[in-house]
Amino acid sequence: MQKFFSAADIDNLSEAVQEALTLKANPRAHAELGKHKTLGLVFLNPSLRTRLSTQKAAIQLGMDVMVMNMDKDGWALETQDGVVMNGTTVEHIREAAAVMGEYCDILGLRSFPSLKDKEADYTEDLFNKFIKFCGVPVVSLESATRHPLQSLTDLITITEHKTVDKPKVVLAWAPHVKALPQAVPNSFSEWMGKAQQQGLVDFVIAHPKGYELSQEFTEGVNITHDLNEALAGADFVYVKNWSSFEDYGKVYPVEEDWLITNKTLEQTNAAKVMHCLPVRRDLELSAEVLDGPHSLVIKEASNRVWAAQLVLKRMLENLK
Amino acid sequence: MQKFFSAADIDNLSEAVQEALTLKANPRAHAELGKHKTLGLVFLNPSLRTRLSTQKAAIQLGMDVMVMNMDKDGWALETQDGVVMNGTTVEHIREAAAVMGEYCDILGLRSFPSLKDKEADYTEDLFNKFIKFCGVPVVSLESATRHPLQSLTDLITITEHKTVDKPKVVLAWAPHVKALPQAVPNSFSEWMGKAQQQGLVDFVIAHPKGYELSQEFTEGVNITHDLNEALAGADFVYVKNWSSFEDYGKVYPVEEDWLITNKTLEQTNAAKVMHCLPVRRDLELSAEVLDGPHSLVIKEASNRVWAAQLVLKRMLENLK
Amino acid sequence: MQKFFSAADIDNLSEAVQEALTLKANPRAHAELGKHKTLGLVFLNPSLRTRLSTQKAAIQLGMDVMVMNMDKDGWALETQDGVVMNGTTVEHIREAAAVMGEYCDILGLRSFPSLKDKEADYTEDLFNKFIKFCGVPVVSLESATRHPLQSLTDLITITEHKTVDKPKVVLAWAPHVKALPQAVPNSFSEWMGKAQQQGLVDFVIAHPKGYELSQEFTEGVNITHDLNEALAGADFVYVKNWSSFEDYGKVYPVEEDWLITNKTLEQTNAAKVMHCLPVRRDLELSAEVLDGPHSLVIKEASNRVWAAQLVLKRMLENLK
Repeated sequence: MQKFFSAADIDNLSEAVQEALTLKANPRAHAELGKHKTLGLVFLNPSLRTRLSTQKAAIQLGMDVMVMNMDKDGWALETQDGVVMNGTTVEHIREAAAVMGEYCDILGLRSFPSLKDKEADYTEDLFNKFIKFCGVPVVSLESATRHPLQSLTDLITITEHKTVDKPKVVLAWAPHVKALPQAVPNSFSEWMGKAQQQGLVDFVIAHPKGYELSQEFTEGVNITHDLNEALAGADFVYVKNWSSFEDYGKVYPVEEDWLITNKTLEQTNAAKVMHCLPVRRDLELSAEVLDGPHSLVIKEASNRVWAAQLVLKRMLENLK
Repeated sequence: MQKFFSAADIDNLSEAVQEALTLKANPRAHAELGKHKTLGLVFLNPSLRTRLSTQKAAIQLGMDVMVMNMDKDGWALETQDGVVMNGTTVEHIREAAAVMGEYCDILGLRSFPSLKDKEADYTEDLFNKFIKFCGVPVVSLESATRHPLQSLTDLITITEHKTVDKPKVVLAWAPHVKALPQAVPNSFSEWMGKAQQQGLVDFVIAHPKGYELSQEFTEGVNITHDLNEALAGADFVYVKNWSSFEDYGKVYPVEEDWLITNKTLEQTNAAKVMHCLPVRRDLELSAEVLDGPHSLVIKEASNRVWAAQLVLKRMLENLK
Repeated sequence: MQKFFSAADIDNLSEAVQEALTLKANPRAHAELGKHKTLGLVFLNPSLRTRLSTQKAAIQLGMDVMVMNMDKDGWALETQDGVVMNGTTVEHIREAAAVMGEYCDILGLRSFPSLKDKEADYTEDLFNKFIKFCGVPVVSLESATRHPLQSLTDLITITEHKTVDKPKVVLAWAPHVKALPQAVPNSFSEWMGKAQQQGLVDFVIAHPKGYELSQEFTEGVNITHDLNEALAGADFVYVKNWSSFEDYGKVYPVEEDWLITNKTLEQTNAAKVMHCLPVRRDLELSAEVLDGPHSLVIKEASNRVWAAQLVLKRMLENLK
């Protein structure tokens, strides 16, 4: 594996999940594989779960880890070619990426979208250039449009907790006060769409009108504006807010009630509720659900380690 | 040991000090104990000594260490239940603590007080919830009302440098220009009060009127407003500023001179002078004392490693 | 080696370069040397290359590394004696350095100049006091007036890529929009001047009038204001902006064109072009040069590891 950026980077999802669960059962089984290999984690934005779980995964594989926080303001990177750099950007992605590639065997990069320039965000310009210029395998720690370690984690968690062979999985839009990226729902839809194709799940997205995701991520996926229709018989409900893709980065007022509660969940098949975290209680998801037997959010976050470890393991095997 | 938060978490102080000194004599004797165990250090506030000494201690026990800086503004945690999180807090302590507990075998947390809401600070709400929700042993790296690693260090340092069996130890208030927490003097008083009960020291607090500490920390302790009375015959003088507990977080003007100098120390038993650092020279403590033979401040800071290593060792032994 | 601060800290440059290249050929050959030794990296200013390459070097020597970011605003250090610290500085360099020396076997320090107070910057007051008070060997990670790890790296890179026995090396001033320190050109001049004395290179500096470096760093070095004269027959062109030393920290308008391009390089001996990075494209150095066969900048950055590893190795050998 040379990059881990989207669902396209893993062919057989079921095999990948099984491999991750094998790592979970025996975390130090490959402690020699990463010996004398260095993972560099580059954060252009804040991170808690991704930072800690990826470090943990790398340590368990025997790797050395170096963390680099490059705040977007403090160390602004230029991504355009042909620009005279006489403004606020201090280093070009060509040099920055190439240099980090010299010091590390594998790199991870986190870079959030601007939510202002749809085209720049959705062409994944910064991320693609980072991959191109660094010259080593790159793990996405969340990019402008995708969060694949989260989605792989989610598939692992669904596999562990499913009670039927092919569970019904619902991605349910939720309210928020801020404009959030579409990266998590894009990725979840991309991965669950693929999982549906491979016969692993039935997948539905429910969101209010105006919150359509980019079609790039929802091909072949059922979409409804009726939350209750989606929840009927659901085995897993994946709760997440996102801002508008069409009217890019905007937050529309939504009149209907999209907050999932214990009452709402009665129409499901005793559904397990998931969220990538951080979650705003009683705004995105009701506290009673988070604190009750429906919730998988902590086990889900815990599984981030095994998704990261699977990806790093495959990259390390490819280095040899 | 499941938590290290106050003097109540160590029964026999003398035994603990001897164990710490044994570690100091042979730092790598337990390098296998922490193998494949992860310490997560979570800082909601800045740290130099605590950060480095606790990392060093963990490394010497063979642990892997992950550091997480969660600036209070950048990643504001909600601690209250029943709140609709539509304001500035981005994650609830319930989720944040639980997730970090999934990635780490032991956690350390630093969280300063607000100095605005006495009740919130003195109930140690955030710290207690962190302990409750993370599910793994927790070391205080300084909380709103206590700094126990500092106080254990201080007892180790006093034991190493005492010239009489039961030294007279004075906690002496000192001037400052900013409003500082009571955490260090609270803890010092709590630990020295306990050390006095166990026959290890004679303990006195000297401070100006209006600077009374919470009675919770000073039970059975002699308190005077006369610095010279306290210093007479003292073997150790522990210098520290704090703001008012009663009129919470306020700084009162003090007319008398509370700055310790070589002259002031003449009335002591050639007292050793201690301070937790950082110290403002010639404001809190005179430069001549800091640079002269009375000062123990660097040796004291150095001993932070052994206090941390003792606590981590006991927690690791308890994990097994 | 007790400190690595200037060219004076290495006697025989050729031997040092060969030793570094031997490390490059076998990075883990001395993995036992640093076992149970701790390197503390203290950054008062941002760092990418220095941070990562020095960590990597230390890891390859088997050391444990602890990183401490002390932002100048967040943790302002007092350097003057005799000052009542009732202002903005929170800790004196005497205590801060001494404490860090207690936790680490070797320390690295990065501290940029103010560019406002020439005397304070050029006496290297903070750096010298740090060395004096910490009590352990200190590696400069760039100080107010020098960046010796960069210059040693540059000499390694020149040695690797030279095609004649004694190459002509040009330090060429370049335009910028900000006022930059003289540390890199000072150091480069100091090291190349010494390399010239030891028969390794011919060295010339080219800069516009008004951009004279301190004579302390340019003794015995040819200096011209004519870029073309300097470039004629050059084997290496080291491109770097700096602000005025004389009119300290000022940026003068320069009318002539000092931007190096492929055209400019035609008069050289197919010169290799170097830059310490970060570089502003088409402002300091043309993109066509950076992306073409003349450029050594990535290989140069990569060599930072071997300069750091050589210095740490010599310090570790001296600890024994």
